[in-house]
Amino acid sequence: MTNFTDRLRKSVAPIWERVHRHPFVTGLGDGTLPVGAFKYYMKQDYIYLIDYAKMFAIASVKAYDLETSSRFAALQESTLNTEMELHRQYAERFGISRAELEATESSFVMLGYTSYMLRVAHQGSLAELVSALLPCTWSYWEIGKRLAQVEGALDHELYGEWVRMYSSDEFGQLAIWLIDIMNQLAEGKSEQEMARMEEYFVNTSKMEYMFWDMSYREEMWPWENN
Amino acid sequence: MTNFTDRLRKSVAPIWERVHRHPFVTGLGDGTLPVGAFKYYMKQDYIYLIDYAKMFAIASVKAYDLETSSRFAALQESTLNTEMELHRQYAERFGISRAELEATESSFVMLGYTSYMLRVAHQGSLAELVSALLPCTWSYWEIGKRLAQVEGALDHELYGEWVRMYSSDEFGQLAIWLIDIMNQLAEGKSEQEMARMEEYFVNTSKMEYMFWDMSYREEMWPWENN
Amino acid sequence: MTNFTDRLRKSVAPIWERVHRHPFVTGLGDGTLPVGAFKYYMKQDYIYLIDYAKMFAIASVKAYDLETSSRFAALQESTLNTEMELHRQYAERFGISRAELEATESSFVMLGYTSYMLRVAHQGSLAELVSALLPCTWSYWEIGKRLAQVEGALDHELYGEWVRMYSSDEFGQLAIWLIDIMNQLAEGKSEQEMARMEEYFVNTSKMEYMFWDMSYREEMWPWENN
Amino acid sequence: MTNFTDRLRKSVAPIWERVHRHPFVTGLGDGTLPVGAFKYYMKQDYIYLIDYAKMFAIASVKAYDLETSSRFAALQESTLNTEMELHRQYAERFGISRAELEATESSFVMLGYTSYMLRVAHQGSLAELVSALLPCTWSYWEIGKRLAQVEGALDHELYGEWVRMYSSDEFGQLAIWLIDIMNQLAEGKSEQEMARMEEYFVNTSKMEYMFWDMSYREEMWPWENN
Repeated sequence: MTNFTDRLRKSVAPIWERVHRHPFVTGLGDGTLPVGAFKYYMKQDYIYLIDYAKMFAIASVKAYDLETSSRFAALQESTLNTEMELHRQYAERFGISRAELEATESSFVMLGYTSYMLRVAHQGSLAELVSALLPCTWSYWEIGKRLAQVEGALDHELYGEWVRMYSSDEFGQLAIWLIDIMNQLAEGKSEQEMARMEEYFVNTSKMEYMFWDMSYREEMWPWENN
Repeated sequence: MTNFTDRLRKSVAPIWERVHRHPFVTGLGDGTLPVGAFKYYMKQDYIYLIDYAKMFAIASVKAYDLETSSRFAALQESTLNTEMELHRQYAERFGISRAELEATESSFVMLGYTSYMLRVAHQGSLAELVSALLPCTWSYWEIGKRLAQVEGALDHELYGEWVRMYSSDEFGQLAIWLIDIMNQLAEGKSEQEMARMEEYFVNTSKMEYMFWDMSYREEMWPWENN
Repeated sequence: MTNFTDRLRKSVAPIWERVHRHPFVTGLGDGTLPVGAFKYYMKQDYIYLIDYAKMFAIASVKAYDLETSSRFAALQESTLNTEMELHRQYAERFGISRAELEATESSFVMLGYTSYMLRVAHQGSLAELVSALLPCTWSYWEIGKRLAQVEGALDHELYGEWVRMYSSDEFGQLAIWLIDIMNQLAEGKSEQEMARMEEYFVNTSKMEYMFWDMSYREEMWPWENN
Repeated sequence: MTNFTDRLRKSVAPIWERVHRHPFVTGLGDGTLPVGAFKYYMKQDYIYLIDYAKMFAIASVKAYDLETSSRFAALQESTLNTEMELHRQYAERFGISRAELEATESSFVMLGYTSYMLRVAHQGSLAELVSALLPCTWSYWEIGKRLAQVEGALDHELYGEWVRMYSSDEFGQLAIWLIDIMNQLAEGKSEQEMARMEEYFVNTSKMEYMFWDMSYREEMWPWENN
């Protein structure tokens, strides 16, 4: 018997493969990523996390049992009060202050991506919500583990910290917990409901690709270049 | 004394001007728009309207008085049960069946745009909600009125119906009602709140531009072309 | 094979039977209901309907297909713009003006009941939402049909209009549509999900009883009498 | 110049005074409260807290700045993962197991009260949300401080822990933070908006009274006694 997440992972195989081969991602591993692109990414990622934490908050509201609700509350709290502090410290090494991080203006891809997740969260079930937020955490863990095997990647002066963070056991445990809860929530769902969750998972996987690509090109709003 | 909507209109002047000069929009007036782009547009616009109607529904839920709630309910109902029927009839003339309209897959810009509006609607106040939905209706009316003055535009075999629809008094009354309610809702708001509404109005104005541009290029997901 | 709504109806049999035997309800049929209690009821019911219409609006937002969304939008619109007009006309016969109806202060039972439905609507799935709103419409139809068989009830000077309204084919069609959609939405749901919907259905059935009882006693906030 | 919370406190003076004089509350101080009523209260309060924590989660979603969002996330997390653990330990002393706490069935007053708060939270602004949740924390602190002055109350074998918890500086700091943020959020609001917040504050103050009263009478659903 296969898990629902096996089905999900299979449905995005070509998209995630393109992520792994994107020059932003390979550049994180071999150090060829331009610093400007990484700084752009850090700022957009920082405001992305503010919205991502809201996904956990809504999950906590929609959960039916106390244990699940408490766990999502803890995830939200640690995202806002611990993970973002790590981001602030890391950004400081690149000369980006907290004030600068928080003054970041949203790019269109950032805004479209988080708005899509939040809309699914507000309108859908807990299972749907989790299917929309899962690609971010899961794919980051996969990227972290792959990059950790690139020679020198873990110790790179600039990007090593990124690779260590997302290949860590601690981050892996978060990913595994989300994968497990996705499978639990999918149990007993009809094919129609599973197809809808798959659609959300595919869409936010595409948006992950677009986030990397936008960062590589340091793009704010595509219309400005027309 | 100026209205809040004067401030809003002023803040998007360059963006709306670019919309008026976009080849999709000018092509609707002089008939140079390729039929393929228009057909693409009709399909994305059809599924856009399904989400746009949800904005009216949420407005109806968030309204504090019965009259406002009833008016938004009537707008939602007429969007879903009257305006969309007109779209279906119009689309049929282009050989697009109702089944094809409803099977339309969302483009990234369509999805990002409607998700952004819906997220503002779910998380914000009624005033914020209206500031996010206003650019669509208001700019369509402005485009309709400008194109109606282009010689032959109202009678064009293919696009005349579009120009007549959005330059009509009936559509204008809807736009005026939304503009009026925006001004009422803005009364007594703090500068901080008005600045936030302006941000929403600017962002959805940019997304309007992107919707026209995406339609002209018949673009689904930008990442697919990389 | 039995429908999910058979299960629901069975689970509330004793509660609904108590409703049928409550002096407010029997008094509507034989004319023994004090006019003061009915006037109190009309006012609370009027503001109840404003919230009940919001349930249809949220249903329209949560619906996944256009047809269901459109149907709920039509229900909301007709509740606000047609049914409430009937209530206003009926109330006028009792000397209650529109202004008085709209100035009605919420009783605790009214507020608790509608808030409970709205909370389920905001946090739950469309199926859950429908399970919470169904007892009101369904039980009113059942009461209407039973009272229509009481001699003279349909022609009673004061309460005949109420009996005619809720025993009418038109109202019955609405109830049947909601019952049908409840069964459709329950298809393929797990036992856990069905048990939750049953809980909502039971709770709002109890609240229906409390609404009748509160009206009979013209009670606003129980604490005021302590 | 007075704060908005001065206005709020003044508007509920008679209601809160009745709370202070209610035999449940005075009985907590002088030890005359029947243990059965307190055990009933602990169970309803436990499931109340699950919903109360959701209020903080929704506040975190509706907050516009990172600092406020983070603070509400921390409140939610500590409510679910620390405060409720204290409740579990305290309940154990009364022979109530965790399983029994979590199997508690909602009383009507509990359900009406939390549903009302959650509905305001889902539909309203952050300021409105805070006005609805404030009476619980603020009045508990006030009760705690008053009871702490009753001779022997702090050391009472059964109820001393309750009095120590809610008269503590730690709890007071939470109350003060909520009062402060209420004043901040009310700044620049129109009289209409402030009147609405006052209405929510008055209504949940009344519900606080009803919660004590329901607990004293160990009432589940009033209709069952008719």
